[in-house]
Amino acid sequence: MTTIAEIQKHLISRKLDACIITRGNMFLGQDILPEENLLCSLTGFTGSAGKLIIFRNRACLLVDGRYDIQARRQTDPASVEVFCTRDSLGTWIQHNVTQPCKFAYDPWCHSIAEVDFWKRVLTSHEFVETPPEFPAVRPSERDAEIFELDERFAGISADEKISYLTKFCADNNLDAYFIGECDCVSWLLNLRSRLLADTPVLRAFALVSAAGGVSLFVKDFDKLAAEFDTWRGKTIGLAFNRCPKKIQTLLRDKHVRCVNIPDPVVDWKAVKNPVEIAGFRAAHRRDAAAVCRFLHWLETNWQTADELGVVAKLHEFRAAGENYYSESFATIAGFAANGAVVHYQPTERTNRRLESGSVLLLDSGAQYLDGTTDITRTVAVGTPPQEIIDDFTRVLKAHIAAADALLPPDTPGLVPDTLARAALWRFGKDYAHGTGHGVGHFLNVHEGPQSLSLKSLAPLKAGMITSIEPGYYKENTYGIRIENLYLLEETSVEDKPLLRFEPLTMVPFDRRLINKALLSPAEIDWVNAYHQKVLTALSGFLPAEENAWLQAAAAPL
Amino acid sequence: MTTIAEIQKHLISRKLDACIITRGNMFLGQDILPEENLLCSLTGFTGSAGKLIIFRNRACLLVDGRYDIQARRQTDPASVEVFCTRDSLGTWIQHNVTQPCKFAYDPWCHSIAEVDFWKRVLTSHEFVETPPEFPAVRPSERDAEIFELDERFAGISADEKISYLTKFCADNNLDAYFIGECDCVSWLLNLRSRLLADTPVLRAFALVSAAGGVSLFVKDFDKLAAEFDTWRGKTIGLAFNRCPKKIQTLLRDKHVRCVNIPDPVVDWKAVKNPVEIAGFRAAHRRDAAAVCRFLHWLETNWQTADELGVVAKLHEFRAAGENYYSESFATIAGFAANGAVVHYQPTERTNRRLESGSVLLLDSGAQYLDGTTDITRTVAVGTPPQEIIDDFTRVLKAHIAAADALLPPDTPGLVPDTLARAALWRFGKDYAHGTGHGVGHFLNVHEGPQSLSLKSLAPLKAGMITSIEPGYYKENTYGIRIENLYLLEETSVEDKPLLRFEPLTMVPFDRRLINKALLSPAEIDWVNAYHQKVLTALSGFLPAEENAWLQAAAAPL
Repeated sequence: MTTIAEIQKHLISRKLDACIITRGNMFLGQDILPEENLLCSLTGFTGSAGKLIIFRNRACLLVDGRYDIQARRQTDPASVEVFCTRDSLGTWIQHNVTQPCKFAYDPWCHSIAEVDFWKRVLTSHEFVETPPEFPAVRPSERDAEIFELDERFAGISADEKISYLTKFCADNNLDAYFIGECDCVSWLLNLRSRLLADTPVLRAFALVSAAGGVSLFVKDFDKLAAEFDTWRGKTIGLAFNRCPKKIQTLLRDKHVRCVNIPDPVVDWKAVKNPVEIAGFRAAHRRDAAAVCRFLHWLETNWQTADELGVVAKLHEFRAAGENYYSESFATIAGFAANGAVVHYQPTERTNRRLESGSVLLLDSGAQYLDGTTDITRTVAVGTPPQEIIDDFTRVLKAHIAAADALLPPDTPGLVPDTLARAALWRFGKDYAHGTGHGVGHFLNVHEGPQSLSLKSLAPLKAGMITSIEPGYYKENTYGIRIENLYLLEETSVEDKPLLRFEPLTMVPFDRRLINKALLSPAEIDWVNAYHQKVLTALSGFLPAEENAWLQAAAAPL
Repeated sequence: MTTIAEIQKHLISRKLDACIITRGNMFLGQDILPEENLLCSLTGFTGSAGKLIIFRNRACLLVDGRYDIQARRQTDPASVEVFCTRDSLGTWIQHNVTQPCKFAYDPWCHSIAEVDFWKRVLTSHEFVETPPEFPAVRPSERDAEIFELDERFAGISADEKISYLTKFCADNNLDAYFIGECDCVSWLLNLRSRLLADTPVLRAFALVSAAGGVSLFVKDFDKLAAEFDTWRGKTIGLAFNRCPKKIQTLLRDKHVRCVNIPDPVVDWKAVKNPVEIAGFRAAHRRDAAAVCRFLHWLETNWQTADELGVVAKLHEFRAAGENYYSESFATIAGFAANGAVVHYQPTERTNRRLESGSVLLLDSGAQYLDGTTDITRTVAVGTPPQEIIDDFTRVLKAHIAAADALLPPDTPGLVPDTLARAALWRFGKDYAHGTGHGVGHFLNVHEGPQSLSLKSLAPLKAGMITSIEPGYYKENTYGIRIENLYLLEETSVEDKPLLRFEPLTMVPFDRRLINKALLSPAEIDWVNAYHQKVLTALSGFLPAEENAWLQAAAAPL
């Protein structure tokens, strides 16, 4: 296994000043397999995002606020300096690297747009491809089943989706379009793969010709050059912010003209079709029934439960559901102080017994063939103190502030983020994560372009799905998060078209944690209307005893 | 006077394809005198913002949504095509000019950053300085008194302010700093001018050496080259987005090194000092007393009043106040349908009598030596219908949604904009302008960097002043806007530092227009607390009869 010291030797022999290593591979921004985690093998850091810059005499690990503490804990301070920053890699270099440097980077692991930005803005530095003796992230050799998602789940055949793209090529005078994002490829071709544990995305590139021919590249990336050779002199569209730099280099080597055009599949995929929407609703009913059965179980079994037991029990209820495929991510079950760690997942070492007087934060979801779920409930264990009840109620107010909003079509995602956050600022509280994320259809549980966060200008559109999940985390004490998924639906007031958040998640909020006196009449109405929707949706879906639990849990406040 | 046709002849003889003309001069973004309005003399368009691109066979006038109708009305469709766009000039060219063109531009009228953007992004076009025979905007030859603002109003002596800048030069290894924005020059040197009617800004550039020497350029811009010659081989800082391109050319001609550094005066000026804050409060008390006296007068005199009479009467009350200098902008007094025109100013032709059954929108302000005011009140005339009362109440809810927020320091201005706007979206309403603007101290009534608008990322800081002014405009029927100025003050909740909006404007809202049933208990509390502040601030400032009016107007809802 390569070490930082070895890379530093390569830097000297190649007359380079630094080498850039990211946690990622050629499928930019997608999850990776453990054997693909070069960043971790070099530093020990296991977080889901980070960048390493190895200089000749030091190594700088850049992480965001979520991973500051974890990165310092997992790395050796003698060899790795940790920097907590919100800046992009390029901006960090701009502000922190004062001497002109020659950087090596892996052209598979950075988008065309990112590398172009470096070269345009960081003019005192030089950026070159890493020489061959440097370690490189290449996709795992593992084999995994590839399968087709039936049209009764996908709603539109691959042929029809491809016809959208051929029309797009004609409209834009393109001979072909290259899709660099694997979730777009998966959606377009109705293909999925079992390679990643919780994400059925097929990791592949696709080249679709204006005539409708499709070339798919799954592991055989050496064949790209030969394919591109047949397009010599032609014009191919690709999204510079969603394609590895290497693709552009390969195309240019073969004298193919590259045009930077946003990938249209991104928006087609984000706005769900009627079959996908019906599937989401059905999957969420099933998922809600499983979560309700679990919550009923927990109410009488918490005295003997621990976090790992909670994860297993919840899985048991879910896995029995129709069309169940997998979890959609590793369940977060954090009791008391463990709940205050935003990305906590219980292990044998950290596992805690549940005890009276605090809350369990439970963030989980599943992949069903007809839809993907993601829900967080914060649940009273025994009798929590008034402080927790009041904080839960405040987070609920923040959730409602976003979920009850009416927004003009194309409002940027930062708006509902602001509405939720402002409701907590009032109490001197905040949360160090976004308010919500888009969700793929039996694809990534986090999938854009929409995002509810302060920096997101991506427009919200009818048919998109997003989570709303404000939280509050009292360090070393407890964590609270309340998350539902919502479908953005068209509505109107006085003829003005607006979007509203229609809930997909159908599980009551824990009424033992609601201080009704802190809610406004409008907020109480919202909770009661939501709980009424839950009762309607789950009617007939639960056995008698669990149904009785639900009726009480979702009764009007 | 030059015409579009003459410019088109010049284009042909100079082998140019197009010429860019803006409404502005070398003092980028500042107000201009009528004789400086080349855009207007060429097209007839009198709006406060617009850009003209003259091609050999057409002329395109770009305006924003505020001026769409007005521009079409004022220009001759045979010679000018009007385009309503939110795009910058460069972005508009990028999307609308497909053939490669050679553009001429006036290097005094565009910032370094803007021209650099064109040259970097619009690579298929060419941009050159306009040849000498083309018409150019040069500052008016008018003479006007320049005067010093006394330190008892300014709070800090010019010498002390200059010392901040010499320290800044030292910290940044600069031999001098060039200030390209005249409001920054005015603030730094405590100088003002009577040149512009409502804006006491001194239009000038300043070069401040690291040793504290100041060179001031008021009309003698020919002397810049000679001054720059003395800095040959030295390093001068300047803000590329706030300096005309011409300045950079002149500096480079003399081999002076130009470094792009944000102008620090912008923030020093935006965060008011204690003397400025005390002055603002005092000016607002005086201004509020004048407005209250006017509102009391209107209540018994509306039957015989018209819009122009309202403007004159309000001026009369204000002008009697201590330290009164001028209006801060031309008063907007729009009755009924005239109020629905956002930038309406009454003229002899449009002047309307007040009649029972609608509302008067009154947006006005004054320059006092100790501070600048800007207030909008929407006032019932006779008995307005319930629809207007309900809409007024909704706009009031939007105002409160922003004004009652608590925000972490450095929150971008888009956040309070969002909070206000979301409160109106709920009723299918919106307004086609920002929610608020910064205010200068006896300088521009609109002065950044802070701005409450959906695109503003500029951070809000304690000591800044901003308006909050949501509105609703029913075309051809009525207009509603409710505007106060607020000082951002530090506060905290549970030890978390926060900013709150402390009102400076001290005039009651028209209670005849408030439908209490539409307000939440928290909103009613906010209005009552505000009115109590008004009563406290104006206690002893009004004659008996007017004071009795105020006591009733500001009584609890």
